Formats: sequence, structure tokens, C-alpha cells
Amino acid sequence: MKRFFSADDVTDLDALVQDAIDIKKSPLLKSDIGKGKTLGLVFLNSSLRTRLSTQKAAQNLGLNTIVLNAAQEAWTWEFEEGAIMNGSTVEHIKDAANVLSQYCDIIGLRCFAGLTNKEEDVSEKIFSLFEKYASVPVISLESATLHPLQSLADCITIAEHLPYDKKPKVVLTWAPHIKSIPQAVGNSFAQWMNKTDFEFVITHPKGYELDTQFSQKATIEHNQQKALQDADFVYVKNWSSFEDYGQVVPVNEDWLLTNEKLEVTNNAKIMHCLPVRRNVEVSDEVLDSENSLIYEQANNRTFAAQVILEKIVKGNEKA
Amino acid sequence: MKRFFSADDVTDLDALVQDAIDIKKSPLLKSDIGKGKTLGLVFLNSSLRTRLSTQKAAQNLGLNTIVLNAAQEAWTWEFEEGAIMNGSTVEHIKDAANVLSQYCDIIGLRCFAGLTNKEEDVSEKIFSLFEKYASVPVISLESATLHPLQSLADCITIAEHLPYDKKPKVVLTWAPHIKSIPQAVGNSFAQWMNKTDFEFVITHPKGYELDTQFSQKATIEHNQQKALQDADFVYVKNWSSFEDYGQVVPVNEDWLLTNEKLEVTNNAKIMHCLPVRRNVEVSDEVLDSENSLIYEQANNRTFAAQVILEKIVKGNEKA
Amino acid sequence: MKRFFSADDVTDLDALVQDAIDIKKSPLLKSDIGKGKTLGLVFLNSSLRTRLSTQKAAQNLGLNTIVLNAAQEAWTWEFEEGAIMNGSTVEHIKDAANVLSQYCDIIGLRCFAGLTNKEEDVSEKIFSLFEKYASVPVISLESATLHPLQSLADCITIAEHLPYDKKPKVVLTWAPHIKSIPQAVGNSFAQWMNKTDFEFVITHPKGYELDTQFSQKATIEHNQQKALQDADFVYVKNWSSFEDYGQVVPVNEDWLLTNEKLEVTNNAKIMHCLPVRRNVEVSDEVLDSENSLIYEQANNRTFAAQVILEKIVKGNEKA
Repeated sequence: MKRFFSADDVTDLDALVQDAIDIKKSPLLKSDIGKGKTLGLVFLNSSLRTRLSTQKAAQNLGLNTIVLNAAQEAWTWEFEEGAIMNGSTVEHIKDAANVLSQYCDIIGLRCFAGLTNKEEDVSEKIFSLFEKYASVPVISLESATLHPLQSLADCITIAEHLPYDKKPKVVLTWAPHIKSIPQAVGNSFAQWMNKTDFEFVITHPKGYELDTQFSQKATIEHNQQKALQDADFVYVKNWSSFEDYGQVVPVNEDWLLTNEKLEVTNNAKIMHCLPVRRNVEVSDEVLDSENSLIYEQANNRTFAAQVILEKIVKGNEKA
Repeated sequence: MKRFFSADDVTDLDALVQDAIDIKKSPLLKSDIGKGKTLGLVFLNSSLRTRLSTQKAAQNLGLNTIVLNAAQEAWTWEFEEGAIMNGSTVEHIKDAANVLSQYCDIIGLRCFAGLTNKEEDVSEKIFSLFEKYASVPVISLESATLHPLQSLADCITIAEHLPYDKKPKVVLTWAPHIKSIPQAVGNSFAQWMNKTDFEFVITHPKGYELDTQFSQKATIEHNQQKALQDADFVYVKNWSSFEDYGQVVPVNEDWLLTNEKLEVTNNAKIMHCLPVRRNVEVSDEVLDSENSLIYEQANNRTFAAQVILEKIVKGNEKA
Repeated sequence: MKRFFSADDVTDLDALVQDAIDIKKSPLLKSDIGKGKTLGLVFLNSSLRTRLSTQKAAQNLGLNTIVLNAAQEAWTWEFEEGAIMNGSTVEHIKDAANVLSQYCDIIGLRCFAGLTNKEEDVSEKIFSLFEKYASVPVISLESATLHPLQSLADCITIAEHLPYDKKPKVVLTWAPHIKSIPQAVGNSFAQWMNKTDFEFVITHPKGYELDTQFSQKATIEHNQQKALQDADFVYVKNWSSFEDYGQVVPVNEDWLLTNEKLEVTNNAKIMHCLPVRRNVEVSDEVLDSENSLIYEQANNRTFAAQVILEKIVKGNEKA
């Protein structure tokens, strides 16, 4: 494996999930595989789960880790090719990526969507530039449009809770929020679900359609209750409008997920990537119920990261 | 040992101090005990000594360490149960504690007193909530009312300088400061001294009484010179008013500790937890004198942390 | 080796460079030499290359590393001896240096020039105070006047590209910038070049003379084109005025380095310490040309740090 940016970098999802579940059983089995190698974790944005789970995964593999909060600890990056750098940016991403590649054998990069320039976000301007100039494998710690380590952890979590006797119905439901939030987690979950044979439904208010390159063949249902009918897994997440890019488009109906709304499901398991705005996106009763998988998802972040890091350290192996 | 929050988590103080002194002689003797385990150090506030000494102690035990400056590197925490999170807080402490427990085998938490809501501080609202929702042992890196790793280091330092032929007299003296400072170090030192058979005196201006749950049986003497008479150890520290909560109540007398004031002592050793406002709390001549133990205290922070981490890694052993 | 602050701490530059080149061939050969020892990296200023390369070097030697962003993560330092600390500074550098020495076997310190008080910067006030009060070896991660790890990496890079049949001509050329930048890299490169038998020329506009204690015997040529004639290596760097201390003195001529200007050189290799203001200091075409050594310099930072750390760990060995 040479990079990890999207579901498209995975050739056999079932095998990858199974590998991660095997690692979870014996996380220290290959604790020398990374010896003498260094993983750089570069954050342009805040992070709790990604920051800790990826460090933990690296430690399990014997990889040295160096964490860099790029803007605060180093220098503000310039992203324009050919820029005359007489403004507030101090180092070109071209130089940063090249230099970081001198010290690291693998680099993880977090670069959220700016949500102001749709074209730049959709084209993954920052991640692409960084990867272009890096000379070592780059893994996404969430980029403008996708969050693959989260989605892989979500797939692991679903695999651990599959119903015995049926193909599961998985529903991704939009949730309210007070701020403008990237589409990355929603896009990414949709992209990975579209790689499975699960029944996959996305429900959201009109105006909150995801980019169709990620929602693809998913059923879109604007009526939340109808969508939730017989669901086995309900994934809750807010995102801002893709069409009216980055905007919080007013919604009249009540989209807060509650136990009452979940009554129509097949005793569905509840998922959220966290952090969650409690009682704005989902009610406490749902998040703290026995059906909530939110902390298992967080736990599986370690094994998602570890299986990817292992394959990248090994280099040639497919994922 | 399952937690470390206060002197009350220690059953045999003398034995604990002796264990720490033994570790100091051979700090790398058990350098494999933490192998494959991870210590998370979570800071809601600044830290120098605690940050470094605890990392050093963990390294001596072979524990992996992950440091998180929670608000700057991750998300601002919500502390109200049942909150509708439509404000500036991004992640509930309930979720943060649960999630951090997925990646860490032990968590250290620093959460200073806010000094605005006495009831919340006295009830240790933040530390208690975190510990309630964490599923792994939590150790205090200074909470609202106590600083147990500092106090244990102080006990080690005193043990290393005990007079041969007498029970020592230990004086905790209040010192001036320009800002509103928590009572945690003062409370904590009092709590630990009250576990010994030392003669223990607290001296402070009227209005600066500590919470009696910590000062307990200590002799309170408002005349600093009288308190210092024949002292073997003088611990200097500022704290804001507990009664007039968090306020810097005006003081007319001169409480700056100087060599002249120390003349009445039994050639007392001088202690301070640092950082110290030089020539405001204590004069340079005192801090830099041969009798000053301030850097030995700092050094002993490592062995205080190490003895506690060792007992927590071992799990069932009492402290 | 007991400290590393300047070229004057090096007795045999050729041997040191050769040792670094040997380490580069087998960086993990002595991966146990630092076992049980701790390197503290203390930053008062931003850092990318120094931060990562020194951590990488330490990992290669089995040294534990603790990174501290002093002002953000700990406390603001007081630098005045005898200060009555009733202002905004929280901890005296005397106490910080002493305390850090309790936890670290070696300390690296970055403390840029403030560029407002010439006397303080020239006297290396901060680095000197820190070293005075530290009880372990201190290495400079760039101080007010010098950047020795950068210069050593530069010497390694030049050694790897020496012309076969002649003594090289090395030119340090001033470059434009929009901000007030320390002289440290320029000073330091000059100081190290003056330790070689290379032909060494410094070119800059009038008013940008470096401190003569560092420029020493170097040829000063105010005409950039004349200076560049037949150069084998061109080192580009901005610095603010030393005479009109810290000021950006207006320059009428065009000092931006371009391929056209380089035509008079002996197909010169191009060097810059980074970060670089592209198309302000140097044009993209120069930085991205085949002759550019900028990423090799960055890579060699690791081996410069590693050779120094190794000699300091060994203690008595000369450098």
C-alpha cells in the first residue's frame, strides 16, 4: 500500500476489515515492524481521536511518532503555485512536504475543508499538493472531502455487530448543528458503504444533498422517519450544504435524533464519529443507550490506523 | 492502586515515600513494566514540572506517553450534564473521558480551579466528571483543590532532609502574589502533612484561611514571625482567599519571606513548588541560599510520579 | 563534547563533517547509545526543520525526547536578574533552566533574537542565562546570533558536492524580505565558512553588513553580480540590518536571485536554510532547479544533530 486517501485505495474491503479485527485481538503481535521508522502526524486542524488513535497504532507497531501542529508550532503555509510570497504565509506547502519527507517514512496529514471555495475543496487542493511534493506515503487524517480512517473504523464496528440472518440496512441521517461543518465524514461513510452490499439509505433535508461522486447509488430519502424504517444501523452526522456551498441552510422540520424517532427501526445500533453536539444533533438518551456504538467506533480508530500503517510499512502489499 | 487524587488514596505514606526513594536510586530498574501500555497526559492548563516529570517517569517505566493540550489541540469541553450543546463547547467531557479511555491505560488530568464558582471547585466538578466517565485509572496532575504529585514529592524531599534527633517542625507560610491563585498546593501540602507526626503550623494573614477539610488539626498562627520560630522546614506559597472565594484580599503587613525573617528558624530548609514570583513571594537570597530545596523538590517530582505510575500499572497493589 | 553553541565548540570541522557523513550511511548503528537518557527540546520560537530533525536524530540514538513549547505550554520567562516579578512573567529563566536540568540529560534551546535590543542580542542574553543555570549540556537550536546545527548541516551538504579539482568558491548573498529577520543564519554560515579554506565571499547591499566577529576575513562585495562570478555554491538568505539594528533598510537595486543572475557562476549549487519566501528572496526557477540543494540541506539537519547528540552523550569526546 502506497497511500491512504479514500475507499478507492482499498481493493478488498472485507479482507481489510478482517485484518483489522485480527489486529484488535493481538495488537502487539507485530510490535517490531516499524522499528527505526518514523511516522509524522501533521495537523492543520484540531484533533482528538485521530491524534491519539494514530499515535497508539504507531506505538503498537514500534513506529516512532512525531506530531506537528503545523501553523502553531512551525510556519503558516502558502498553497498557490508560483506565489510571490510577500504576504502572511511563511513556507510553501511544496517545501514543507519535501522537507517533512526527509524526516518521516510515512506522513499523516489533516487538512479540513475551508468551506469558502468549493472548487478548491472538491479538488482536494491541499492534500493533493502535499502528496504531490511529498516523497513518502501520505495518509489522510481527514481531508477536505473524505475521512477514510473514520470510515474504516466504522466498517470494522458494523462488521462486529452484523445481524446474523440478513443483509443490514444502514441509514446515514443528517443532523442539525449551529455551525458550518464539512461534508467529509458524510461523504466518506457513503463512499465506503457503497463498497458493500448493505442496503444503504441517506436521509437529509432538501438542500443538503452530498456530492454525488460519493453518494453514488445510495437511496436518498428526504423523510427521516421513512428512511429509519427497519434500519439496523443509524449513522448520525451533520454537514453543511454542498450545493449552497458551506452554508447552514435553514431547515423547518425537527431533525434531532431521539429514541422516539428510532422506534421504527430494527432496534438499530447508533453511530457517530464524535465530537457530537449533544441534544442538538442527537439526544443524550440515544447516545447513552445500550444500542450506542460511539465509543466502540472510537476504539476501532486504533485498529483502522494500525492495519493501514502496517500495510504501508510493508509497502508493496495491497490493502 | 486504582486512582491517585489525594492523600486519602495512600494507605501507608512512609512506605510510599521509601519506595520512591528506592526508585530514585535505580530509576531504570523496572524499565519494562509499562511495555505496550500508554499513559495519556491531558492538560487543561499550563504545566512545566508536571508535564516533564511525569513523562520522564513514564519513560523510566517503559510506558508510552501521549500528551494532549485539550483545548488547543482538540476541542473545548462541555461540563454540564444534559446540556443542549448549541454554544461554544464542542465535546462533552463524558465523551472525551470515554474516548481517551479507549487509547490510554492510565490518564493524568490537570484541571485547575476556575476560582469563580466555589461550589464547583470544592466539589471537584471537572475531575470527578472525568473520572466518572473514564474506564481506566485517572491520576491528578493538579485538580481544583489538590496537587498530590507535588505533595508526595514534597514528602520525599522532607524525608531526605529530616533532622536526626527530633521530630521536625514544618511551617507552611502564605506569601504575597499579584494574581488570584488556587489554594490547591497549600491544601494539598496541609493534607499530606496532617498524615505525618510532624509538628505542622500554617501561617497566613486573616482572611486567607484554607478549607478546614485540608488544614484539619494544623496549628494556625497569624503572626508569621511567631510561626517561623524554630522551624526546620518552611514551605512558601501564595493562595487566594477561600472565604472570599478566589479574591486577592488586601494585606497590610509585609509577608515577603526574607533571610532576616528566617533568623528565628532552626536554620530551616526552604521549599516552594515553583513557579515562584521572585522577590514578591520570596526574596532571591532565600531561594538561592544553601538551605533552598526548590530544585530537589522539582527533581523528586519524577520519583513521585514514578512510584504512583508503577503501583497503578501493577493495579492491585496498595499505595 | 559539553555544549554546542557555535563553530568555536568544534575543534576539527573536517572530522566532524566526516563523522556525520558516516552516520548518514548507517543512522541506526548506535541506536542504543541514548538508552535511558532524555533530550529536552525547548522552543521559545516556531520551528519545523529543527524540531523534526532533532527528534529524528534522537530517535536514531535511542534517546527519549520531550518537546516543550515553553511560553504556550508552560510559563512566560523572566530574564532580569534580581527582578521583582510583579508583572507578566511567571517563571525566572534561572528556575526554568535548573528545573529542566532535573528531567533532561541534554537540553536544546531555541531563542531567537528579539531584534529590539542590540546589546542583549549580541551578548546572547537568553542562551547565556539558560546555560549558566542549566546543570546539563545545552545545545543551540538557534540563538540570537547563531544557528550552528544549520551551519553544520550546510557544511555536510557542501562536502557532499565539492568540486573535484579545485577549492570551491562559496558566496553568501543577502536576499530581500518583507519582515525584520535575525542575522543568525548569515552570521553562523559565515562563522563556519571562515573555519574552512574555501574562497568565501559575502554580498549584500550597503547597510546590511554582518557583525564582523562572524564575517571576519570574508571578502565583502556589494555588487551581487561581481560576487557571483565563478561561484560553486550560492547561499541565499535575508537578514535585517545589524548597524541600524533590526531594521529593514530600503534597498534600491533588485536582489531577488534568479537564474539569469546565476549565469555568471560556475553552474553553482543553490542553498537556503528554509523557510524561504519564494519569488521574494529567490525565484521558483532557482529553488526548483537541478542545482538546488535545499532539501538535501534539510535532510542533513538530522545527521548534524545526530553527530552532535552522539558526542554529547559520550561526554568527553571532542568534536
